[in-house]
Amino acid sequence: MEQTRTTQPEPRKIILDCDPGHDDAVALLLAHGNPSIELLAVTTVVGNQTLEKVTRNALAVGTIAGIAGVPFAAGCPRPLVRNIETAPDIHGDSGMDGPALPESTIELDPRHAVDLIIDTVMAHEPGTVTLVPTAGLTNIAMAARKEPRIVERVKEVVLMGGGYHVGNWSAVAEFNIIIDPEAAHIVFNEKWPVVMVGLDLTHQALATPDVVERIAAIGTKPAKFVTELMDFFAHTYKDAQGFDCPPVHDPCAVAYVIDPSIVSTRKVPVDVELQGALTLGMTVADFRAPAPADCHTSVAVDLDHARFWDLVTDALVRIGEPGTNARADDGAAHPGADRTQANASDVVRPESARLTAGGVK
Amino acid sequence: MEQTRTTQPEPRKIILDCDPGHDDAVALLLAHGNPSIELLAVTTVVGNQTLEKVTRNALAVGTIAGIAGVPFAAGCPRPLVRNIETAPDIHGDSGMDGPALPESTIELDPRHAVDLIIDTVMAHEPGTVTLVPTAGLTNIAMAARKEPRIVERVKEVVLMGGGYHVGNWSAVAEFNIIIDPEAAHIVFNEKWPVVMVGLDLTHQALATPDVVERIAAIGTKPAKFVTELMDFFAHTYKDAQGFDCPPVHDPCAVAYVIDPSIVSTRKVPVDVELQGALTLGMTVADFRAPAPADCHTSVAVDLDHARFWDLVTDALVRIGEPGTNARADDGAAHPGADRTQANASDVVRPESARLTAGGVK
Amino acid sequence: MEQTRTTQPEPRKIILDCDPGHDDAVALLLAHGNPSIELLAVTTVVGNQTLEKVTRNALAVGTIAGIAGVPFAAGCPRPLVRNIETAPDIHGDSGMDGPALPESTIELDPRHAVDLIIDTVMAHEPGTVTLVPTAGLTNIAMAARKEPRIVERVKEVVLMGGGYHVGNWSAVAEFNIIIDPEAAHIVFNEKWPVVMVGLDLTHQALATPDVVERIAAIGTKPAKFVTELMDFFAHTYKDAQGFDCPPVHDPCAVAYVIDPSIVSTRKVPVDVELQGALTLGMTVADFRAPAPADCHTSVAVDLDHARFWDLVTDALVRIGEPGTNARADDGAAHPGADRTQANASDVVRPESARLTAGGVK
Amino acid sequence: MEQTRTTQPEPRKIILDCDPGHDDAVALLLAHGNPSIELLAVTTVVGNQTLEKVTRNALAVGTIAGIAGVPFAAGCPRPLVRNIETAPDIHGDSGMDGPALPESTIELDPRHAVDLIIDTVMAHEPGTVTLVPTAGLTNIAMAARKEPRIVERVKEVVLMGGGYHVGNWSAVAEFNIIIDPEAAHIVFNEKWPVVMVGLDLTHQALATPDVVERIAAIGTKPAKFVTELMDFFAHTYKDAQGFDCPPVHDPCAVAYVIDPSIVSTRKVPVDVELQGALTLGMTVADFRAPAPADCHTSVAVDLDHARFWDLVTDALVRIGEPGTNARADDGAAHPGADRTQANASDVVRPESARLTAGGVK
Repeated sequence: MEQTRTTQPEPRKIILDCDPGHDDAVALLLAHGNPSIELLAVTTVVGNQTLEKVTRNALAVGTIAGIAGVPFAAGCPRPLVRNIETAPDIHGDSGMDGPALPESTIELDPRHAVDLIIDTVMAHEPGTVTLVPTAGLTNIAMAARKEPRIVERVKEVVLMGGGYHVGNWSAVAEFNIIIDPEAAHIVFNEKWPVVMVGLDLTHQALATPDVVERIAAIGTKPAKFVTELMDFFAHTYKDAQGFDCPPVHDPCAVAYVIDPSIVSTRKVPVDVELQGALTLGMTVADFRAPAPADCHTSVAVDLDHARFWDLVTDALVRIGEPGTNARADDGAAHPGADRTQANASDVVRPESARLTAGGVK
Repeated sequence: MEQTRTTQPEPRKIILDCDPGHDDAVALLLAHGNPSIELLAVTTVVGNQTLEKVTRNALAVGTIAGIAGVPFAAGCPRPLVRNIETAPDIHGDSGMDGPALPESTIELDPRHAVDLIIDTVMAHEPGTVTLVPTAGLTNIAMAARKEPRIVERVKEVVLMGGGYHVGNWSAVAEFNIIIDPEAAHIVFNEKWPVVMVGLDLTHQALATPDVVERIAAIGTKPAKFVTELMDFFAHTYKDAQGFDCPPVHDPCAVAYVIDPSIVSTRKVPVDVELQGALTLGMTVADFRAPAPADCHTSVAVDLDHARFWDLVTDALVRIGEPGTNARADDGAAHPGADRTQANASDVVRPESARLTAGGVK
Repeated sequence: MEQTRTTQPEPRKIILDCDPGHDDAVALLLAHGNPSIELLAVTTVVGNQTLEKVTRNALAVGTIAGIAGVPFAAGCPRPLVRNIETAPDIHGDSGMDGPALPESTIELDPRHAVDLIIDTVMAHEPGTVTLVPTAGLTNIAMAARKEPRIVERVKEVVLMGGGYHVGNWSAVAEFNIIIDPEAAHIVFNEKWPVVMVGLDLTHQALATPDVVERIAAIGTKPAKFVTELMDFFAHTYKDAQGFDCPPVHDPCAVAYVIDPSIVSTRKVPVDVELQGALTLGMTVADFRAPAPADCHTSVAVDLDHARFWDLVTDALVRIGEPGTNARADDGAAHPGADRTQANASDVVRPESARLTAGGVK
Repeated sequence: MEQTRTTQPEPRKIILDCDPGHDDAVALLLAHGNPSIELLAVTTVVGNQTLEKVTRNALAVGTIAGIAGVPFAAGCPRPLVRNIETAPDIHGDSGMDGPALPESTIELDPRHAVDLIIDTVMAHEPGTVTLVPTAGLTNIAMAARKEPRIVERVKEVVLMGGGYHVGNWSAVAEFNIIIDPEAAHIVFNEKWPVVMVGLDLTHQALATPDVVERIAAIGTKPAKFVTELMDFFAHTYKDAQGFDCPPVHDPCAVAYVIDPSIVSTRKVPVDVELQGALTLGMTVADFRAPAPADCHTSVAVDLDHARFWDLVTDALVRIGEPGTNARADDGAAHPGADRTQANASDVVRPESARLTAGGVK
């Protein structure tokens, strides 16, 4: 036991910047439920729907997941240069159609997401905070421009977006990038490590019937919430893009942070096209030669489908039934530096609840 | 006298966003020395030189002018999307080559310029604050994106930049716009009133020998500082762009705020080109038809050269010799509530008072 | 008299490449009726209307003017890269709405306009043939690409199109350029002398009521045809672009060839924008410095309105009433070697002969 | 024998438009040596080297192959809009460095390639002529613009160029397309069937050592010529692009025409990017949904490497040793009506007949 503790790696501190969004919701649940992740903040940005809607959705997911002690802050209501484009044909009018949403028990942080991102990064040791954007990159770009010092301080940017050979919003561009290509250009061109978890990878993360059944079998409210999300998502992805099972993009980025062996990557220069008539917002990867020594971008290539869904299922199991267990919802599965080794099957052991009580900012 | 005071219009509250810069220095002196202007803040942004250099220059000019009680804050060190481009061939290596610069007696405000702009606008009554950018529009664009509510709250954006028929950094683009065209695109496309004081106008604001002589004749240190600026400026503008006398761009924007009758304008739709191979950063004005009713942009057309230089000269006269006159330097010509009540006529020398008598509103 | 003849300059050999078009019709009448012009060929290209329509119109105008012995050939039915865009709101459904058109008595040359242009240029002495395009530049660009040797052989390209400060089809682009910007790019970038007679100039060539009256007073069928053209043109230019009198663009290019003192020009580098979102097809002129020694482009600046319309009126007078005068229609004013030797003074009415006195061979 | 003849399909009539070029040379040898191809014309265009050089090379290859009775014509010396870009690092200074080239015994056709293409297509039955461009598409685009009727008359355009997921001259663009992207845009947007044999396919056509040995074993001069070409090509492709064996692009297009079962294709909309800063000249294929019913473009996907090289080897065997065999070089393997009636089986050497007897693997 002692030994296990010493070899246990530090949990990865992340800021999840999202626009829930069905798959953002799963990403948030995975980040919250997985013990290798310490969720420092959740920030929202216009994307799948308006800022107002995705922020409400984020708070609702946080409430369902029983997240406490983690600041949620709203960010930019529109892209840097282009006009707002949302995705109601995929995510519905609310941005997270399907399940009924609870009233949020989480209060929105008064800070602007851009400042929360900057403050959080600057408040932690250099090289310890990973940014995980699963939406348009407006907030992240604004933060990098407002406080350039975050760039060398951030450990890594692991983003869901783009695609080196696959597009969805155009032949060669993906939604999160094309809705704010200038912001994406900024993020990909800053010299922090960027891992692009794009459509090439996330189209492998299909919520197949057996996956959905397995989640349904968990039997908790959060699990039921996920199955309802997947049910809606399956229909819109079938109708809008002809998918048999919906690709659940965003948690793939979180999965990479948890365990890079689940998402293989390749180092390759990537840049964002800002001028193309047919290629606006394309994440242009140059595979012609071995990546140069100073290449700071890599792309996700292959997903271990089984282990990916194991992670998601495990997180839901750990989250359990928030709210039923007195204060167990307070960071239930979060073992930040000082968290215990709660086994997934135990879920919420008293000591972990205690340990994390004072551990979350 | 009493009567004059009661009919005196409220001074125009402005935030000067600048990158000194020889002509920015004159703009700041004009804004400080003219009683129709209440200078709420001075913010700096990368442009003529790096942020560090232009900020040091701004503080030096503030010190020379004897500005007190006005926050100076540094903003963005680089453009939104493009790489940094500075103008050493015009402004020298320091960004304000020519005169020796004093140690600054002004302490930089710790806030980011973007936040200072937002806070200042939000702290004043709607429709009372005018933004006067005389540099690249990075700070202003960032502020509009971070806090969109400033857009309807700002009275007007009176910017030096662009040109509807004249370019300087390319055949059809001007420096302040082309160094951050995306920021300019943001500023011109927000629905606040935008007055573009471009090269069409500022190429009329030549510092002719008689003008420089007149300023020299004032005999104060700030006046000497201006003549030294003009001397350097004359050489670089001659060498780099073939001008016989240097165009002193930035104070034209301030002059428009002081007295729009000095700078005639025309309402016309203006947008910024972001894609052109030859026209990147062009401020495209559409003169083909009468401007539509909701047109929120206008362009400066004709300068009253004599009255413009009267304004500048008068401001220098009013500024006098800061530091020699106990506390007269504390907001000398500024009638802001929190400033000393020194009457401009107390500090101007007789001969200069005469010169400017009919020229000051 | 003998002496006059020997000092008389050689007529300028031109190929008129057009898309009639009301003003193209006037250009053709001017080229035919003016003794300083030797019309080598008339070629047509899609533009104001489809190739079929503008070719029919060209033949009709040739018939009305009594042109004989000049080959008319049809060229490209569509622009190089872009889709076809015509101008029915200006020129009507036929491309030359207004007057009734006669059956053509001219047979179309079987050659492709591109080949006719090439053959004609290559068949004449180097430096003797001027190309006068008054339409999109597709034919000219194709000819230059198919037979690059024409470039150094052509004396000059005097084209109606573009505008350095004026646009009509967009804020900054003119119709003839924007309908085939790639062709225009080719033509402006080849090293032949290019004189751009653009909107800056042609918007001075207004068919004012006195001009129209003067033409009407000539009393011939061609003159009546022109007044009917002008009547229609006046209405569409009023409705579509708010002009009080219609600008008669195309004959300005012919007028420049006849007498450059009527159309002042300035040497300045000009290039065509192919990428702009707002500026596609703009003729970008760089006025920032004196034109370099090898500058091969110039732009038309000022029109001598009175002398321009004198030229047009005089040409109509010289054309007279084709067909009534046995062989007078056979190249009436044309001094081409292969044409009948009818002396212009046989057909011109005394008063008009006086107007043009030293100008007739 | 009689029976074989009646079931024998008509040979495919092709025009090979090329810029030899090492792989163009192999394409020409394959087209000449394969009995399923009737070579109607060989046209050249600037590309791998200047028009002059590639034309000389084409004539040399024709001479080596013993081609007779087939017109060779030179076309465009430069791209439509862009400046000339050649590939000396791949093809050497001559455009076909490596083997010594013979004096050509073929006289260049006086016609322009564009006219030869048009004339040839218009002279044959509709739907019988396939264009096989293995160079920049300038000639083909010019022909389509000069005589639009060829578009519906051509059976198919089978071109080597582009790549849906692979680039060589930029991250995402291929040489033949990027050197004249406007021409490529024209060709891909005309409604004839276009088969893009791009880098995705041709990077499978590696001249592996066993392939080169097999060709060397043929022992004829043309075979030796090919091995010398491959030897040079191997070195430049190793040095410039890091290939272990050189990809022999151009004959893949000919192979597809000979036997589409060797080159699998997929129907997908393809367009050419003309505006991108990173993606200029990319052949953008949209794989997001099943191709629409009227989709006229398809892309080559998989190569049957063995059968491809069998075709090449077989063609060399059939070509034999031109010039040694009285008139056998006159259209050796060509069954064109207007060629000498030499039956292919008369000239092929027994062993080669055997090799190809069963139709090749």
